[in-house]
Amino acid sequence: MSSVTNVVVNRGIKKILMCDQKSRNSLSLAMMRNLLEHIKEGRENQDLRVIILAAQGPVFSAGHNLKELTSEAGRTKHEEVFRLASELMSSIIDSPVPVIAQRPLVCQLVAQCDIAVCTENSKFSTPGANFGIFCSTPGIPLARKVQGSTALHMLLTGLPITAAEAKASGLVSKVCTADDLEGEVQKISDAILSKSRSVIGLGKRFYYKQVDLDVRRAYDLGGEDGGESGHEGRQGGNQELRGEKEAGLVARGQ
Amino acid sequence: MSSVTNVVVNRGIKKILMCDQKSRNSLSLAMMRNLLEHIKEGRENQDLRVIILAAQGPVFSAGHNLKELTSEAGRTKHEEVFRLASELMSSIIDSPVPVIAQRPLVCQLVAQCDIAVCTENSKFSTPGANFGIFCSTPGIPLARKVQGSTALHMLLTGLPITAAEAKASGLVSKVCTADDLEGEVQKISDAILSKSRSVIGLGKRFYYKQVDLDVRRAYDLGGEDGGESGHEGRQGGNQELRGEKEAGLVARGQ
Amino acid sequence: MSSVTNVVVNRGIKKILMCDQKSRNSLSLAMMRNLLEHIKEGRENQDLRVIILAAQGPVFSAGHNLKELTSEAGRTKHEEVFRLASELMSSIIDSPVPVIAQRPLVCQLVAQCDIAVCTENSKFSTPGANFGIFCSTPGIPLARKVQGSTALHMLLTGLPITAAEAKASGLVSKVCTADDLEGEVQKISDAILSKSRSVIGLGKRFYYKQVDLDVRRAYDLGGEDGGESGHEGRQGGNQELRGEKEAGLVARGQ
Repeated sequence: MSSVTNVVVNRGIKKILMCDQKSRNSLSLAMMRNLLEHIKEGRENQDLRVIILAAQGPVFSAGHNLKELTSEAGRTKHEEVFRLASELMSSIIDSPVPVIAQRPLVCQLVAQCDIAVCTENSKFSTPGANFGIFCSTPGIPLARKVQGSTALHMLLTGLPITAAEAKASGLVSKVCTADDLEGEVQKISDAILSKSRSVIGLGKRFYYKQVDLDVRRAYDLGGEDGGESGHEGRQGGNQELRGEKEAGLVARGQ
Repeated sequence: MSSVTNVVVNRGIKKILMCDQKSRNSLSLAMMRNLLEHIKEGRENQDLRVIILAAQGPVFSAGHNLKELTSEAGRTKHEEVFRLASELMSSIIDSPVPVIAQRPLVCQLVAQCDIAVCTENSKFSTPGANFGIFCSTPGIPLARKVQGSTALHMLLTGLPITAAEAKASGLVSKVCTADDLEGEVQKISDAILSKSRSVIGLGKRFYYKQVDLDVRRAYDLGGEDGGESGHEGRQGGNQELRGEKEAGLVARGQ
Repeated sequence: MSSVTNVVVNRGIKKILMCDQKSRNSLSLAMMRNLLEHIKEGRENQDLRVIILAAQGPVFSAGHNLKELTSEAGRTKHEEVFRLASELMSSIIDSPVPVIAQRPLVCQLVAQCDIAVCTENSKFSTPGANFGIFCSTPGIPLARKVQGSTALHMLLTGLPITAAEAKASGLVSKVCTADDLEGEVQKISDAILSKSRSVIGLGKRFYYKQVDLDVRRAYDLGGEDGGESGHEGRQGGNQELRGEKEAGLVARGQ
């Protein structure tokens, strides 16, 4: 059986390439199980530093596999699909190494990845309602990444947004030409590789912890955990300390 | 007594036109009661699919009716105004059919509607503090739709933002020319009409439920409710299933 | 001992100028204590209406003072730094008068201020992870002001964003030329000065209270507090009532 993904690990970067073109790289049960396994695998491997989710082929992404969501498939099957989708999304949050979406993957994956880069002519939509199934699970990361008006516009109409709208509304953090795509993702990966794995892991964990708290409770936690993550951070990160000159520079301008 | 609104229902689309030009379509008690009635009415009518809030006249919108917020009006009156405003806003959230803001309505309504479209030269502001009454209730949907820096900028200064800033900050999802306005809203309405009423209703309900939860609890709920809304969705939506070819297409690009 | 800040109060506007160029205006313990004192001082002074945080010199801002975060400094010291940073950020939220960030201050301060204005060639970054210390505390206001994809992009990579990206993502509400900077901040200050101090104070307090609640609870609170803040507002704000003509105008367009 040929796999629905193709995985290459190089210099600490695990690139998971979705290559199930027959089903347009849909989030089938097989694809979700495969992605979940590859995202979870090596979680404790100190050499693993970055995960990139990408996709092969002219149409780069798809939603759920509708064959698994027909009336004939039955309710138990549907529940399995949505439960697995939730587990997959949670695994991205739980991954101690950053997960980057490259190119237009399925909208839900893009919205859940820590960082997302797409090409200029990418389009994104959540068309589930067109097929009688509202994109409820995709709406979860969408509501947290994308501004309210655009998120509901997408979910209720199923109409696509452009790459420019994806950047403006917060779905992706960078848009570039197809030629620059690899370079842009490499730049992001390099920036992560240059840092301490444990600092990034603790920092990412703290981010997802604090973001759901009210702001005062978050600051209380910062006071408690700040020293913690700072300390462990320094242990792992000392070798990368590049001198205080640079350290001072956080924002500059005229 | 002439009504402060003019309501037309056509092909499942209920258009509520605010036409109280004498008071600049302010959210007077009379206007709020009227809007509330029209938004709630027909909630269970299966033929009702979309509600559009629009306004008549060269100045399209206003805030509260200040005559009802003078010292002479008294505290009980003020409390009634704010309570009714909250009830009106909640009725938009509770509406099982999407509520679209067309043109520059009062900022609070625009921010609370599910989808908002405005014209290029629209401006939006929350000037309450200018008149001794902070826009506290308008700040609720504003804080949830608009980026923090812009929301507070508007609320604390009362200064207006342009249509471009409204789009960039998330207050509206589309900006178009005055000539294209009807067409753009029609396109959105058509997209909703082409879907199952129950799928949209369940999906909208789930969205407002999950958006306030922390992300893990939201995914737990997605796992539980996903099958539910998916299933009911399919019941209502089967006739609209357009084939799996399209279904696969969620995001594409080069 | 020369102070690390230079404070001028004029017409109700307190301008706190960070001028510790030797340490690139880093958020050293001395700087944080100084800022905290100046933000808290005069909180009950009815003549104080606006606080502006600005910085001197060609490089306008810095993060924490890394000398205080070395292994030698020790864990107790680090905890003190993070606790004080949290206290400083909370003092901005608690300030009854709006706090405006002018020019590119340290990213964490910009993100926490109520309103932020920067110049066209400003850049912002959260490079802590480069030095083995994740920007956990700066991530708190960042996650609340800036869209998710950009916030994590900044925190995980340490790479800077431009002024245009800062505006698009919500970090600042206005970008202008260096020449226009003073004028833009003056315009914002004037808008605040023209309003009632108590209305602004109550309104700001309500904003930070409701923003962390779920939307229905926020509206319940609006119903309860609306009359309250409205009433107190009117007491303080009556003299500024400018007639109902203007009051009606909240959004306009063609």
